[in-house]
Amino acid sequence: MALSFQEALSRCAAETDALLDRLLPLDAFPARRVTQAMRYAALGQGKRLRPFLVVESSALFGVPRKRALRAGAALECVHCYSLVHDDLPAMDDDDLRRGKPTAHRAFDEATAILAGDALLTYAFDILADEATHPDPHVRLKLVSGLSKAAGVAGMVGGQMLDIEAEARIDSVLSDISLIQSLKTGALFRYACEAGAILGQADPAPLRHYADKIGLAFQIADDILDVESTPEALGKATQKDRIMGKATFVDLLGLAEAKRRAAALVDEAIATLTIYSERGAVLAEAAKFIVQRRN
Amino acid sequence: MALSFQEALSRCAAETDALLDRLLPLDAFPARRVTQAMRYAALGQGKRLRPFLVVESSALFGVPRKRALRAGAALECVHCYSLVHDDLPAMDDDDLRRGKPTAHRAFDEATAILAGDALLTYAFDILADEATHPDPHVRLKLVSGLSKAAGVAGMVGGQMLDIEAEARIDSVLSDISLIQSLKTGALFRYACEAGAILGQADPAPLRHYADKIGLAFQIADDILDVESTPEALGKATQKDRIMGKATFVDLLGLAEAKRRAAALVDEAIATLTIYSERGAVLAEAAKFIVQRRN
Repeated sequence: MALSFQEALSRCAAETDALLDRLLPLDAFPARRVTQAMRYAALGQGKRLRPFLVVESSALFGVPRKRALRAGAALECVHCYSLVHDDLPAMDDDDLRRGKPTAHRAFDEATAILAGDALLTYAFDILADEATHPDPHVRLKLVSGLSKAAGVAGMVGGQMLDIEAEARIDSVLSDISLIQSLKTGALFRYACEAGAILGQADPAPLRHYADKIGLAFQIADDILDVESTPEALGKATQKDRIMGKATFVDLLGLAEAKRRAAALVDEAIATLTIYSERGAVLAEAAKFIVQRRN
Repeated sequence: MALSFQEALSRCAAETDALLDRLLPLDAFPARRVTQAMRYAALGQGKRLRPFLVVESSALFGVPRKRALRAGAALECVHCYSLVHDDLPAMDDDDLRRGKPTAHRAFDEATAILAGDALLTYAFDILADEATHPDPHVRLKLVSGLSKAAGVAGMVGGQMLDIEAEARIDSVLSDISLIQSLKTGALFRYACEAGAILGQADPAPLRHYADKIGLAFQIADDILDVESTPEALGKATQKDRIMGKATFVDLLGLAEAKRRAAALVDEAIATLTIYSERGAVLAEAAKFIVQRRN
């Protein structure tokens, strides 16, 4: 019997968690404290949306699930490191993440910085390992793709622009669209491209799909920030408003933001038609991204 | 005519600088501020000792210099990122590095954290590029070797243990030897191994050489911290003493520390005999490491 979308998502989250648990053994390294902080940041939390996108994009091309899960785990290390560093006092200064104290609150700032650094560093070792794919060219594409998605041309660049935008009051839609496409979009794009890289297939349609859902994800985030509660989100809400940061909801209004997000989901689903019924789970994933409650 | 050791070192530093300047173009990415900070942290400074070790280890095996310089530049990105993060207020809280304001002083903390993250991330893209070596297996070995050297099992783990040791007063020689072998030693080891990886040769003798000079480097650092001035070093001195951190000089005494460093240099040079006269520059490098004034 086929799994429901929620069951498929939960299954992938559990598998990702089990894999990260094995990849980050507590007693393997002399520096136990930073290992603890890495595990605190990476294990047992989150929807594992990015690994799920890697796994489901990979499934389109018949990639063995074990390989996709490794690429997903590497990507999740990068995502989790970015959350740890973004939460730091010098950045967003957040105390709560997924309902738990942020890493620098649970440990201390120095440990949080180092744990983030170590998670980022480790991601490339996971990808470079033979277990991720037997073809060395595929592994190198995964490494260089992740580096580009996560670095100055991608996520880190987006975070920098986001911080700079906070200091301005005249942000326009093109500014926040660029920031989003780098800060959140780059890892979504990599997640979907990774499937095509592992499957040695054309990544273009999945890149298009990822761009649509990445933008929809950020618009949905801005809507949740206005409509949800700290209890439901597991982190502070209305934060963007307090920081004076322009959001899609500010610039478009709530109704238009919702309409825009729904339209992006439709466009994302339309790009999946070339995969016929094999694209069904990714179509569900696109819908989930705007319907989620946290 | 053969170059003197100092000329060879300066030549490699200039080449590394020129390469990093090309690899980090100021206008290539939308996030200009973080690119500026990356360039601030990575360009125009330092002896470039680690790239020099990559280049000279590579020369033992006839590796084209351009390839070695790329691996050296990637390693230098990692070294520079580690300095930026180590200097942060939450870590060593340093204001001066190589005679200039540290990155978080010249920019701000958030920018410094992001610039460090981006330099670390970029290193893996440099290594994964075909220009580094035509054989994909070689590039993957460089990627996974750097990840292991820089991460929780290496440099980051060493920095964590170093911070924890500050809080204790009972550090013994075995503690600080372990911390050094991770914090400083891991990148030295990688620098020398990289030559053997690029040359597809046995890395064991160079690993042995690197372990000796890495430890000698740290002992020499502790001696400089006591004997030098902030002007000559370009950073605060006596810092370890103020922080109550145990050093090799504390534990061994100044005379024994100097004797130990000299003995390590002799041992390092002895491991080079299998390379006959081709090992001459690396022998000079070992001597330089304990004789340098900054």
